[in-house]
Amino acid sequence: MNKQDRNIYLSNMEVEKALELYLDRLSLDRLQAEEEAIATVESMGRVTSQAVFAILSSPNYNASAMDGIAVKAKDTFAASETNPVRLILEKDFIYVNTGNPILDPYDAVIMIEDVTVVDDSTVEIIKSAAPWQDIRPIGEDIVANEMIIPSNHSIRPVDIAAMLAGGVNQVKVYRKPMVGLIPTGTEIIEPGEAMKLGKIIESNSRMFEGLVKEYGGQPVRYKPVADDYKLLKEAIQKAAQENDMVVINAGSSAGSEDYTVGIIRELGEVLVHGVAIKPGKPAILGIVECKPVIGIPGFPVSAYFVFENFARPVIKSFIKQPVHIRETAEAVLSKRVVSSLKHREYVRIKLGMVDDKLIATPLNRGAGATMSLVRADGILVIPQNSEGIEAGETVTVELLKNIAEIKSTIVSIGSHDIVMDIMANLIHHKDSDYSLSSAHVGSLGGIMALRRGEAHIAPIHLLDENTGRYNVEYVKRYLPNVEMALIKGIKRIQGIMIRKGNPKNIKGFEDLAREDVQFVNRQRGAGTRILLDYMLSKKGISPEAISGYQREMTTHMAVAAAVESGSADAGLGVLSAAKAMGLDFIPVGDEEYDFAVPVKYLKQPMLMLFIEMLKSEEFAKELEALGGYSLEQAGEIIYI
Amino acid sequence: MNKQDRNIYLSNMEVEKALELYLDRLSLDRLQAEEEAIATVESMGRVTSQAVFAILSSPNYNASAMDGIAVKAKDTFAASETNPVRLILEKDFIYVNTGNPILDPYDAVIMIEDVTVVDDSTVEIIKSAAPWQDIRPIGEDIVANEMIIPSNHSIRPVDIAAMLAGGVNQVKVYRKPMVGLIPTGTEIIEPGEAMKLGKIIESNSRMFEGLVKEYGGQPVRYKPVADDYKLLKEAIQKAAQENDMVVINAGSSAGSEDYTVGIIRELGEVLVHGVAIKPGKPAILGIVECKPVIGIPGFPVSAYFVFENFARPVIKSFIKQPVHIRETAEAVLSKRVVSSLKHREYVRIKLGMVDDKLIATPLNRGAGATMSLVRADGILVIPQNSEGIEAGETVTVELLKNIAEIKSTIVSIGSHDIVMDIMANLIHHKDSDYSLSSAHVGSLGGIMALRRGEAHIAPIHLLDENTGRYNVEYVKRYLPNVEMALIKGIKRIQGIMIRKGNPKNIKGFEDLAREDVQFVNRQRGAGTRILLDYMLSKKGISPEAISGYQREMTTHMAVAAAVESGSADAGLGVLSAAKAMGLDFIPVGDEEYDFAVPVKYLKQPMLMLFIEMLKSEEFAKELEALGGYSLEQAGEIIYI
Repeated sequence: MNKQDRNIYLSNMEVEKALELYLDRLSLDRLQAEEEAIATVESMGRVTSQAVFAILSSPNYNASAMDGIAVKAKDTFAASETNPVRLILEKDFIYVNTGNPILDPYDAVIMIEDVTVVDDSTVEIIKSAAPWQDIRPIGEDIVANEMIIPSNHSIRPVDIAAMLAGGVNQVKVYRKPMVGLIPTGTEIIEPGEAMKLGKIIESNSRMFEGLVKEYGGQPVRYKPVADDYKLLKEAIQKAAQENDMVVINAGSSAGSEDYTVGIIRELGEVLVHGVAIKPGKPAILGIVECKPVIGIPGFPVSAYFVFENFARPVIKSFIKQPVHIRETAEAVLSKRVVSSLKHREYVRIKLGMVDDKLIATPLNRGAGATMSLVRADGILVIPQNSEGIEAGETVTVELLKNIAEIKSTIVSIGSHDIVMDIMANLIHHKDSDYSLSSAHVGSLGGIMALRRGEAHIAPIHLLDENTGRYNVEYVKRYLPNVEMALIKGIKRIQGIMIRKGNPKNIKGFEDLAREDVQFVNRQRGAGTRILLDYMLSKKGISPEAISGYQREMTTHMAVAAAVESGSADAGLGVLSAAKAMGLDFIPVGDEEYDFAVPVKYLKQPMLMLFIEMLKSEEFAKELEALGGYSLEQAGEIIYI
Repeated sequence: MNKQDRNIYLSNMEVEKALELYLDRLSLDRLQAEEEAIATVESMGRVTSQAVFAILSSPNYNASAMDGIAVKAKDTFAASETNPVRLILEKDFIYVNTGNPILDPYDAVIMIEDVTVVDDSTVEIIKSAAPWQDIRPIGEDIVANEMIIPSNHSIRPVDIAAMLAGGVNQVKVYRKPMVGLIPTGTEIIEPGEAMKLGKIIESNSRMFEGLVKEYGGQPVRYKPVADDYKLLKEAIQKAAQENDMVVINAGSSAGSEDYTVGIIRELGEVLVHGVAIKPGKPAILGIVECKPVIGIPGFPVSAYFVFENFARPVIKSFIKQPVHIRETAEAVLSKRVVSSLKHREYVRIKLGMVDDKLIATPLNRGAGATMSLVRADGILVIPQNSEGIEAGETVTVELLKNIAEIKSTIVSIGSHDIVMDIMANLIHHKDSDYSLSSAHVGSLGGIMALRRGEAHIAPIHLLDENTGRYNVEYVKRYLPNVEMALIKGIKRIQGIMIRKGNPKNIKGFEDLAREDVQFVNRQRGAGTRILLDYMLSKKGISPEAISGYQREMTTHMAVAAAVESGSADAGLGVLSAAKAMGLDFIPVGDEEYDFAVPVKYLKQPMLMLFIEMLKSEEFAKELEALGGYSLEQAGEIIYI
């Protein structure tokens, strides 16, 4: 192990500068992939390395464009209504179908509708034929020697048809660049291996495989390599020899087990270590055996953005394809985003079209949040020299989805329940034109989003202490000037979730204040948090007495997971979450989980579908399987 | 053979109505493909048939988010600058790296930068740690049982990563619908078979193969079937049994050898025969063995639009994917388009960005013009109730290419020479960000296009009879108020093209007037046509004396092809075209083929690249290989 070579400094180079430096140094010409000849019928998606010229003309002969008779035009010049001309079969004309060759001495076609049959061998015409009328001349579509497609062209189905019609059965294309992918890390295991404490399932290289294919390369994934200097060095050298480029995942940082940069330097050279992007700063751009070797950080979101910024343009350089900028859309930012002057930040964005206004809501900004990429509709790029963007400002978002898809998505912001996952699935299954997107910010957060015009519906469960009624009073109070309704949802059982067998012997809220009991809470504004506070105050328990009251999770499932893992002993949540995690449960009471909705949206087809699915048998079945729910009123509308 | 069943009537049903009728009758539920379980790592592009829920949480344990020490938070509460707290290794703290598990009794991490090492077993801190600080809680990214992606979702690389991270190694997807493709026609031959008179290379089914893949299906192409009732019937029945749907190409019309509709009716039922679109009217929508069977007309462009309108939505119905409307752009129509009230027409459009104005130029509207699809940047849909659109009107064009690609395309409108193919290829090869698109409307047509602001450059070769000079006078005359320049192009030899061996013994222009000589001409406004007229008038030959003077082709190659095929005996054109077609050639004289350009465009990077390539060695080499060109001045700028 040679620790001397480890890099302890990371530079902070601008993306464009780093990329330019790298591509210049790699020299675009040397990057060009070799060419190979392949069958035209198998060339879809490949990139031409040479222009393709037609070998044959299409049509390859003068062809009749009509069903009719082939004639010698000059025989017909005298024809008129007052002076019909008679033509004799085999002497003056022959019958032809569309596509039949027209040969000397014939030089025109008269369509059958304009021909009067006199007898078996005689016809009469009353209109002259211009030379070459209704004949598709040879080469009308494609002329031999004409260019069909240029070089550096990505072949589409219609290009294949044109090449074949032009007699081109083989086409020269760039060989797909082979991209070696090396997952590294002592802590990683392969999917399917038994999960152990401290282990992480390797998944980044599988994302890279897909991206490499998408960008026109051939992925070559290697077995994961442990954080061992010697093994890693061997793996990188081998991959550089066997491929056109190499991507090493994780170990690109400057930590005590991050060997990548030292090894690349030893085997070749490091051009850039550290770029001014977030997530993704510790990227490495290197060269080994004259091949590009890119070190990519381990957090999935960092990995994605470093791959997009650097691996993608290199792959595309091999096959001479430009990196097109994504389509963009203007949207109103729903939440303030603070960023650093030190880097460009890529914020994953959920988009929704509410009242003809596109609303951009930032998703989890953590570098480890794979789900923020899965859920993202777009990317908001915050430039390096910006400290962030205020809520309400109009921003340009790079689209990851078709805008039509975004426009037909119900935007739900509010309380979390697994019911929302089920509804999202049922809606998309029933009619894949429509989707449901849910942001979990708690019941009050949802009501605020409706007030700002950022959501179609807000799932809420808010108990009014005076009336003992759920939801209605809160909607009235916070949205007094909007015509509102409640779509009735489900009743669900809330309770205290505890580990299987109740090892800490927790019986009720009183036990949460015990010194040996760790609690895990929900975030402020969550209906469940409000319920907790209500119960504590009713029982005269001070929140300060509860160890873990400050520890906030944003979903029932996250609370359940914390209890299941032992990092907490108890949390408040719904029965379905407890059951899903195999926890015991002390019921506290039923509550009503409904959907606040401005009346004006109720007639939108996607909202009507939402209501239809709430009332559906499929929904009832799925809830029954989960347990802890009842839905007598589901889908009913209560106008407020 | 059962001719009774042949259909002689075609209805004229609206596309939407026909499709709705068809999908309703097929019943969406029955159309759903079966599901199959596949490995997650191989699921890219497949469509989920069920929602995917996480099996494991990610991270699967409470993990340190920092390099530092794990502590018990309550031990640190007293720490401050004035009251440092000392912690003992293995008793009060342990060292941890990012990603290490944090286990009981530890409940917080302090990053190494905030730790002062006292000795090997003692550290000191001066700031308290909040419980759970710098710990990634279990399930921070993905919580077990949470939905990762819904059903009917097309799987992307990032979804694969999320599923693997969530412990999902197998995923349920729709089986790809198998689409049987039957090419038919006695006249068709397979690519590679020897070309014979009257034969056509089968290429449509190869385009369909590509489109089926693109839309998520599995193409199953059958051997071509002759126009034989019995054979065709057997083929359709077999394909319907072996596939989820069937596409029959050609024979869908009502002609004497169009059996398809009769056979489908006999084997099952025909729902629609004839839709109100152009090209593509004789489409057939039928059902055999409960499977969709679609008859598609033979002309390639008709085939494309019928496939897009009907086969695509059926394929996507199987895998529950919506058919997204293409991105569109607003453009100014450069030429009047006349259409019929009887049908919706799909006009292939070339787009170019000239002076920040997107210009839409209609391409060849023939149903046989495959190249109009290859060259198209977009599609202009002219509705059924419209008689057409005037030049200068703003239209909405469905985009087939990325708008960025269109914006970086040099728009050339004017005279044709194979040099334009070579330049298009060289430019795209040198920098694939840029393209050159050429429309061939003759020299004068090009100058008019510049005048209307529809092109960047106009290739012209226009001899001024008074000065004997090429091009300069014409530009001055037609563009008096624009600051113009000429980019010098090439000198080329024009002459009379005749068949190899000169069978008709043609010696010069005088022979063109002979009764036994068929001429083929260029279109009005073409420089070559102007040259012909100039030579004829000089020699006192009347155009009426020339048989074939009225027969117009729009390119040198098309003229050469007509001569080569024997449909004409002579035509005027350039040496390179004659050589390419193996013709003999009687030189008439040199001419100058230059590029008229408004001065304001000369500084655009893509025009600079154009000039660079004109001056390049590659260009010189390619021209030398063609013969008949000289290029002493190529790339020089002459300001007018």
